[in-house]
Amino acid sequence: MFTLRLASGKEARILEGHPWIYRSEIARVESEGEPGAIAEVRDSRGRFLGQAMVNLKSQIAGRLLSRGEEPIDAAFFERRISEAVARCGRSVKGPDACRLVFGEADHLPGLIVDRYSDLLVIQILTAGMERVRDTILAALRSAIQPRAIYERNDASPRKLEGLELRKGFAWGRGETGLWIQEGDLSFFVEVAEGQKTGFFLDQRENRQVVKRLAAGREVLDCFCYSGGFSLSAAAGGAAAVTGIDLSAEAIAWAEQSAERNGQSSRCTFMIGNAFDALRAFDREGRRFGMLILDPPAFTKGKEALAGALRGYKEINLRAMKLLAPGGILVSCSCSYHVDSPTFLGMLRGSGADAHREFYLRELRTQASDHPILLAAKETQYLKCAILEALN
Amino acid sequence: MFTLRLASGKEARILEGHPWIYRSEIARVESEGEPGAIAEVRDSRGRFLGQAMVNLKSQIAGRLLSRGEEPIDAAFFERRISEAVARCGRSVKGPDACRLVFGEADHLPGLIVDRYSDLLVIQILTAGMERVRDTILAALRSAIQPRAIYERNDASPRKLEGLELRKGFAWGRGETGLWIQEGDLSFFVEVAEGQKTGFFLDQRENRQVVKRLAAGREVLDCFCYSGGFSLSAAAGGAAAVTGIDLSAEAIAWAEQSAERNGQSSRCTFMIGNAFDALRAFDREGRRFGMLILDPPAFTKGKEALAGALRGYKEINLRAMKLLAPGGILVSCSCSYHVDSPTFLGMLRGSGADAHREFYLRELRTQASDHPILLAAKETQYLKCAILEALN
Repeated sequence: MFTLRLASGKEARILEGHPWIYRSEIARVESEGEPGAIAEVRDSRGRFLGQAMVNLKSQIAGRLLSRGEEPIDAAFFERRISEAVARCGRSVKGPDACRLVFGEADHLPGLIVDRYSDLLVIQILTAGMERVRDTILAALRSAIQPRAIYERNDASPRKLEGLELRKGFAWGRGETGLWIQEGDLSFFVEVAEGQKTGFFLDQRENRQVVKRLAAGREVLDCFCYSGGFSLSAAAGGAAAVTGIDLSAEAIAWAEQSAERNGQSSRCTFMIGNAFDALRAFDREGRRFGMLILDPPAFTKGKEALAGALRGYKEINLRAMKLLAPGGILVSCSCSYHVDSPTFLGMLRGSGADAHREFYLRELRTQASDHPILLAAKETQYLKCAILEALN
Repeated sequence: MFTLRLASGKEARILEGHPWIYRSEIARVESEGEPGAIAEVRDSRGRFLGQAMVNLKSQIAGRLLSRGEEPIDAAFFERRISEAVARCGRSVKGPDACRLVFGEADHLPGLIVDRYSDLLVIQILTAGMERVRDTILAALRSAIQPRAIYERNDASPRKLEGLELRKGFAWGRGETGLWIQEGDLSFFVEVAEGQKTGFFLDQRENRQVVKRLAAGREVLDCFCYSGGFSLSAAAGGAAAVTGIDLSAEAIAWAEQSAERNGQSSRCTFMIGNAFDALRAFDREGRRFGMLILDPPAFTKGKEALAGALRGYKEINLRAMKLLAPGGILVSCSCSYHVDSPTFLGMLRGSGADAHREFYLRELRTQASDHPILLAAKETQYLKCAILEALN
């Protein structure tokens, strides 16, 4: 039987509820299976800890699937998927969109499933999940009965697992562009070409906060992508909204959504670099009542943290300088390696350099269908600070 | 002129927007004034940084009042108080209650003003504010026109400033017990005998979360004080609520409020020690769908942090064991010295020891009328974690 024996004392994190086994924590491998095969995990004295999907090529060599001894078969995955879709206020029908499976936090490490109306988009990030891909597809079809399932297996973490990058329909076919509904707003989503699986579902609740605070304000939305925050601000009664993004495609989607929601007259979308745009607005003496910064992760690893923080600090500093008195800054970071205290420290530094004083109105995180496992800090990655300028 | 000259390099924190000057950062004092007098603050090269209330007896020797050179007179305090009461959604009239002045965060270091319906309660925590007490009272009377002003100057931090402890009416007179309105609920508040200034205004928004999540659940509210969380849970449709507090007075107030809100049949209040009660419920095999822990600060200093964390961990562990599957734990800490990462780490440890798995649904903080100054971490003290048991 394929078995991982941990080195002495290395069972502690697992016993505390964390699902990962690092390669460096393994003392011995018995009857090694193929990458992604299921192994028993035992501590140094032979005590059974659970069953994990194992890929000895990866630094995270094991990901616990179960702490029990039940068979890991089709029925197991059907059960796990049913449990996941029933949690966290998720919905399985209708024109809306939500995350149905959030990997480790749903006890399905390496698997992401998002629903966009009647289309599912999946992401498989580990060799273990790749091995059971057909089982997962069947379980999803039976639990959700979608029109089609598209796979966005073009995410770079797959390389660490020795997996190829690919995308396309995994089951069914049809259009990859579609409309979803979020509250009163419709958004156009392109699952084949968009960021992540097509839309920033993780910002859903933060868009509601923007909507609530935008009334009467001139809003500048940097890294606006397909207009999620911009249209939420417009729907909340913003006086005018300017959205900026480097991607011409994203800007076209944002314009399409603005039109569909009757907000074209209040929204202007521009293709451009946010750093440059902020500098230009400053030169022109423009000021905004609300500024939104939702940049891409400036770092995906610990190594580049210092550089990433310089990037965050610079863009926040520029944004703070453009705020009118009493203005609101909505500042996000989706870099897991920038933790909350570091993120707040960076904002504090930007505020000092900008000579502006701020209240921290809220420090928010990802939407509730991206649940955070208390035992695994890594399941929390999004920070969204709501700052209010006092002067 | 009374002047503080900072040691070389010690101006950095002040320039970053923080209002405190530690005694150890002062290089020279010129024309020393009495405790609480206003001094000019200058860096080592003589550059003007602002005006501070100074008490060289205290470790926090200076608290910046202004970064400008304007006269610190009655008009100055009137202006500051008007600005404060106009901020953060505060209200100055009506049967409700809110914090009107939150010390440093409102640029009035050492001053707390709470409004309970037509009664103001003030707390003066520094020698500087004590010197201008009459000016502050006059400014409050003119800005808010209360029925009376009660002073709760019996808080122990006053001793660090060399101030006596006292309480009583500072202006006007009348009853010290009164009813306030929070949403649909009425609460009895006793400003002379209650905790802090009479009620936990800082938990207002967290009570709303409890109300939203309590429907159908059996609720146990530990350290329930005068029933704020208990009655919010009952109003939210809890099946039954048990509140426990050591203070017989607080329990009497809670019962009075339960009756006034027509919730007596669903609420049971008990005088008792929460640690003992949790142990007894566990022996009886009782389980709860929602558990609320809002203990007093287990530490007010850095020294006692390890002991405080042991206390937090023990009570959270006991509470977690009593949760039914899917149960909600609302766990608070008002110790400033237990920061968010430390608090979450403690909860992680309790969860591991309880062999329970949790989602961190939200990590909340104090109500918005207790604003958090980005530049001064010390203005944030309350943590309120909303945890959901997966099993």
